[in-house]
Amino acid sequence: MDEVPGSLGTSASFSLRMGQTMFSSASLLFMSFGVEFYSYTAFCYLVTIMGLVIPWSFTLALVDGYSVLLKCPIRQPGILLIIVVGDWVLSTLTLAAASSTASVVDLLLNTHGSFCPPKLCSRYRISAIMAFLSWLLSLASSLFNLWLLPSL
Amino acid sequence: MDEVPGSLGTSASFSLRMGQTMFSSASLLFMSFGVEFYSYTAFCYLVTIMGLVIPWSFTLALVDGYSVLLKCPIRQPGILLIIVVGDWVLSTLTLAAASSTASVVDLLLNTHGSFCPPKLCSRYRISAIMAFLSWLLSLASSLFNLWLLPSL
Repeated sequence: MDEVPGSLGTSASFSLRMGQTMFSSASLLFMSFGVEFYSYTAFCYLVTIMGLVIPWSFTLALVDGYSVLLKCPIRQPGILLIIVVGDWVLSTLTLAAASSTASVVDLLLNTHGSFCPPKLCSRYRISAIMAFLSWLLSLASSLFNLWLLPSL
Repeated sequence: MDEVPGSLGTSASFSLRMGQTMFSSASLLFMSFGVEFYSYTAFCYLVTIMGLVIPWSFTLALVDGYSVLLKCPIRQPGILLIIVVGDWVLSTLTLAAASSTASVVDLLLNTHGSFCPPKLCSRYRISAIMAFLSWLLSLASSLFNLWLLPSL
């Protein structure tokens, strides 16, 4: 059984999960501090998805940290399959949320320049960028675990 | 070597590819008939991506039809890997385009009711729905081919 760097129970996976948690939290915070997010469907959707991604990534970060400390990685194919599918579903939802947010921010900035206070809009933009970064990390986790799956 | 229904060179795969081509073309047509699409970044992005998806799906539909008629499916792992990766990249891009378009249409309809003529907006909405359907079929193709890949 090979050790795939980045798969469940390695320190690389722990870093990926911490990165996901960090970027999703940043995305959620930047979105929620401007209190007007609930007037746009795309922004509400982003907040909902980030509220799902944060506990998922944080739990898996804890599992990884535990596995690294005890030097006893989890290697049940069933659990790994659930994690791969969960990661994949969440990364798809994150991508959809991030691109919706990005396109709405772009529309608000360009077409209705006066409609969006510049301070709020730059916050929304940072939030969309953070969501994209969270998507990339989540995708990386999913691919690394998928790579490990056939060798179990 | 098992025959996975929906994988490259089967009649199910041919139907999937034809569906993708049809839905992408419908999405492109509904978007382009309202001539104002170039004023929104999200709509331009959708048109670009659909312009990539249509030739890709159509070519693979031809390959599938050829394989079915000659009863000689292509089974090189290298080619299959390229198709899986290509399908996956295109389905990700399609999802991003579809959700961007959907969120912009939603914003135009709700917040700026007077800004968007109802006839144009319902066209944009149909275009977004077609793009989502094209994403689903493209994802199905990618998963079926991925399922076949380890058995080669």
